[in-house]
Amino acid sequence: MKYTEKLSAIRMQMQQNGVDAYIIPSSDPHISEYLPDHYKCLEWTSGFTGSAGTLVITQNFAGLWTDARYFVQADDQLKDSGFELVKLKIQHTPEYIEWLTEQLLKGATVAFDGWLASAELVKVMRSGFNRFNFKLKSDADFLSPIWENRPAFLNNPTFLLPESTTGESTESKIARLRSAMHKNQVDFHLISSMDDIAWLLNVRGSDVECNPLVLSHIMVSAQEVVWFVNDSRIESFDKTTLANAGVSIKPYEAFTADIAQIPAGKAVLIDPKKLCQRAYESIPVGVNIIEGTNPTTLFKAIKNSVEQEHIRHTMVKDGVAMVKFLKWLEENIGKIKIDEISAAEKLLGFRAEQVGFVGESFGAISAYKGHAALPHYKSTPESNVELKPEGIYLIDSGGQYHTGTTDITRTISLGNPSFEEKKDYTLVLKGMIDLSMIRFPEGTKGYQMDAFSRQWLWKEGYNFGHGTGHGVGFFLNVHEGPQSISIAGGINVAFQPGMLNSNEPGIYRPEKHGIRIENLVICQEDVKTEFGQFLNFETVTICPIDKSLIQKELLSDTQLSWLNNYHLFVFDKLSPHLTAEEQSWLKEKTAAL
Amino acid sequence: MKYTEKLSAIRMQMQQNGVDAYIIPSSDPHISEYLPDHYKCLEWTSGFTGSAGTLVITQNFAGLWTDARYFVQADDQLKDSGFELVKLKIQHTPEYIEWLTEQLLKGATVAFDGWLASAELVKVMRSGFNRFNFKLKSDADFLSPIWENRPAFLNNPTFLLPESTTGESTESKIARLRSAMHKNQVDFHLISSMDDIAWLLNVRGSDVECNPLVLSHIMVSAQEVVWFVNDSRIESFDKTTLANAGVSIKPYEAFTADIAQIPAGKAVLIDPKKLCQRAYESIPVGVNIIEGTNPTTLFKAIKNSVEQEHIRHTMVKDGVAMVKFLKWLEENIGKIKIDEISAAEKLLGFRAEQVGFVGESFGAISAYKGHAALPHYKSTPESNVELKPEGIYLIDSGGQYHTGTTDITRTISLGNPSFEEKKDYTLVLKGMIDLSMIRFPEGTKGYQMDAFSRQWLWKEGYNFGHGTGHGVGFFLNVHEGPQSISIAGGINVAFQPGMLNSNEPGIYRPEKHGIRIENLVICQEDVKTEFGQFLNFETVTICPIDKSLIQKELLSDTQLSWLNNYHLFVFDKLSPHLTAEEQSWLKEKTAAL
Repeated sequence: MKYTEKLSAIRMQMQQNGVDAYIIPSSDPHISEYLPDHYKCLEWTSGFTGSAGTLVITQNFAGLWTDARYFVQADDQLKDSGFELVKLKIQHTPEYIEWLTEQLLKGATVAFDGWLASAELVKVMRSGFNRFNFKLKSDADFLSPIWENRPAFLNNPTFLLPESTTGESTESKIARLRSAMHKNQVDFHLISSMDDIAWLLNVRGSDVECNPLVLSHIMVSAQEVVWFVNDSRIESFDKTTLANAGVSIKPYEAFTADIAQIPAGKAVLIDPKKLCQRAYESIPVGVNIIEGTNPTTLFKAIKNSVEQEHIRHTMVKDGVAMVKFLKWLEENIGKIKIDEISAAEKLLGFRAEQVGFVGESFGAISAYKGHAALPHYKSTPESNVELKPEGIYLIDSGGQYHTGTTDITRTISLGNPSFEEKKDYTLVLKGMIDLSMIRFPEGTKGYQMDAFSRQWLWKEGYNFGHGTGHGVGFFLNVHEGPQSISIAGGINVAFQPGMLNSNEPGIYRPEKHGIRIENLVICQEDVKTEFGQFLNFETVTICPIDKSLIQKELLSDTQLSWLNNYHLFVFDKLSPHLTAEEQSWLKEKTAAL
Repeated sequence: MKYTEKLSAIRMQMQQNGVDAYIIPSSDPHISEYLPDHYKCLEWTSGFTGSAGTLVITQNFAGLWTDARYFVQADDQLKDSGFELVKLKIQHTPEYIEWLTEQLLKGATVAFDGWLASAELVKVMRSGFNRFNFKLKSDADFLSPIWENRPAFLNNPTFLLPESTTGESTESKIARLRSAMHKNQVDFHLISSMDDIAWLLNVRGSDVECNPLVLSHIMVSAQEVVWFVNDSRIESFDKTTLANAGVSIKPYEAFTADIAQIPAGKAVLIDPKKLCQRAYESIPVGVNIIEGTNPTTLFKAIKNSVEQEHIRHTMVKDGVAMVKFLKWLEENIGKIKIDEISAAEKLLGFRAEQVGFVGESFGAISAYKGHAALPHYKSTPESNVELKPEGIYLIDSGGQYHTGTTDITRTISLGNPSFEEKKDYTLVLKGMIDLSMIRFPEGTKGYQMDAFSRQWLWKEGYNFGHGTGHGVGFFLNVHEGPQSISIAGGINVAFQPGMLNSNEPGIYRPEKHGIRIENLVICQEDVKTEFGQFLNFETVTICPIDKSLIQKELLSDTQLSWLNNYHLFVFDKLSPHLTAEEQSWLKEKTAAL
């Protein structure tokens, strides 16, 4: 079926069901960012493979609303699909709601599949559509009837992590969760977000590419923790461990039926951003719904000391793989055929040599020259190009290890960098360093710090269209909340010691080049003064930063000194794990500038 | 009546009416920040004179919830009042709601006077109290029955400003408002915020100390603009002008009765943060309530070119008064008796010499040594101290002129500054300068820029407990929205060219000193690049910055160059209006560092 045929088939169902607009969010019943193949609805419907976007279909128009990261990619992928790119002004904002109010007549019907929309999104829709008397239909699945050979649910094995890895037992985590529920005066708590579940139960799986998750839901009460999951995939000794921790197991499909049994008068805590509308609608009338962030989301974000120590060791492994890769690339560029895809495969090979490596934490962005101007570029056989000893190359990649998740971006010169490339690179680096060095009082939110990574770009009239950094999981999702460093004022979460976050400013010049430098940092305690407790960031990523792209005179003394110290740290940590030849290569790459 | 007697009298009424907690917000039926004397309920009830706070009374406890600006002052003023200070963690947050849920039994009754609470506050209460089944009683006025000699409503004359002053006629403003209403698909719009009304009608009055406002409400529809105001105070020729602009007049008291006449099925736009609960409750069932910021609030914030030109001229007048004052203080300190109150009066005298001066834009903060550690200190006959030729002195003051509102803070050394004082001052100055020099892309919010004024303090483990800057009116309130430069991520308003804002970082060391340096800035267009339109801040305040408190070696070259250029600008603008002697004084104060 061509995309235009699919579009026609959807429009026909819309007509048959009296639906004026059909919305397809990029989501699953767990409101995930990265989706199991079964739920890759945007890709199947329109060809768009980006991780964020919404399709909106009326009889006259079909559009993909997505943000600046994906403009170039979407332009390309939507060709001849029947869908047009609609550029979001603000990332993650349902701007199509206002658009629909301008397009449709009063009383129109807007439909979607309630398994794929968060309760929060439906509320926002309701409030936006309210005055236009739009009707909302939340049970419209127009894809299943026409989706031939739709990928099945995965049923991969699962496994528990030992306390020596996680630093906290399942019992202890459940106790902390119950204590938060008690504080919120709620009797029940529903969790659909798979990374919250993985953290709570110390369980991992492989149901989503690059994310070690288990497709499942949880319901917690003072008496019970019920895990809704296909139990054939759980080892019997893990079942025993979980049972001892007070976790019972029911079929995945039983979740909404059990929700419907919550007695009236009880209070249930849910996160409307992380619970799908169909689960939300299953809560009986008379149950008191308390909305808030899942307590596990904040618990999970704060890495305990055991996790932090694992992360530091994991970073050595990841750094070794990166150094082997960068050395190989430098020594072979122009001599053997290397392209974007084979380069990424080579790096994956070096990572795979590391003990405890599980797989990539996301599809690597291996992008040469103008391709790197797409912040989330994915090289395909069609777009793949050969790397030559000129221009700049960006590699954004990460690994899942049993002892942590990594995410690193390095941008390197393959030869003869231009003045503009070096200036751009140095301005990005200055911002990355300034954020690395920041000291801030307890209570500071990410949105207060975001501009520190941009200020040197702003002075030149430059900018970049994505956030400065996101939370990162511990052998979990490479993107996790609740904190972030971005312009979003709505993310009202203060940084706390133990939070693992990325620091990744960039600059993107379409057709020319893209630059991004990314380290992971852990928030730590700094001085305590009469003005209160201050915090800072410990940089944990260990990999040289390409000096050949730096205009030294643009760095301040403090920035230069940070860079030289960082490079000392990199050599110190990695050299014990390198051959003599690799050591001497790294020595040069980390020599003081 | 002593404060403790008032408290008993309130508690007695609470018992008689079955009320478990009584809330007294600092507000009036227009949800003003600065209150007409009639509505100074916090001061009457507890003695606290700060501009922000909430009294909460139960049978066991009586507290004032206020923010860091007022901690020291409140501690002092609440002595023997029966009220205890409760320190807010986050400014302007009703943290007493959670406290009440912990104090009261399920089903308790919480009461307040619905004329003094915004509809928004009541919503937040309702949502916080919901799960505890608290009952809300919005018609409890327990003050009027016991408030002897309560100040009457003011009935001062009003006057219209000519278009040569405002740059836009009332007709044009009403047309813009109606166009915004049309875009929002609403039939009616209610405005209670007095500065919005003053802006819309180009009218000024003097009903609130320091704020040229007229106690009134407005209802706008496609057909009518009804101004609810006591009409005896309006000149007949102004009535004619307003009538020609389509504005009709009804008694102040008729507002809620007219709201109650809005036909069912119609849509009304209101700002729940700016409309009191009693007016909100008057909207008939069946009327579609659309909530949003009053369009006039954004219109008003963006000063047109005529207003901007007036502001620049007004700043010259205000700068002349400030220079005469600073020179007088320097030349007389230690020679004649000068205290905090007489110094502020002297400055007021210099301002009063300026053509077009109307009065202070707020009660001046004239604070010596440790007093200045209270960011909103108000010198009283009891606290007043004599200034001596030592230590540092802070004066934060402003004027209302027919052609603009000013707000300036200067902190000066009266002799022998200490190392700590100079370091603190220079760190504050660095932040103030960095924010003055910032360039940022269109769409940038204040919360993204706030930390630029703090970063040098943070590096030392210092901080200050208020926002970096607030919007300022045009011959209107010295504090106005919607934008601000603060840590509040909820103020999701992008800076736009024409916005007038303060830039006022500080540092406060209890018992020792307080430092704040404040200029006003107007947002202006800067370069346009391939990354979009950039904006910057034009500094419009014209007054020297005390060089004797600067540790020059702490300033970067760029910061030093900003300071020297600013001082050139100050001398250039002010000297034509000064005597030869004043000129030579200013020459020295503005000489390059």
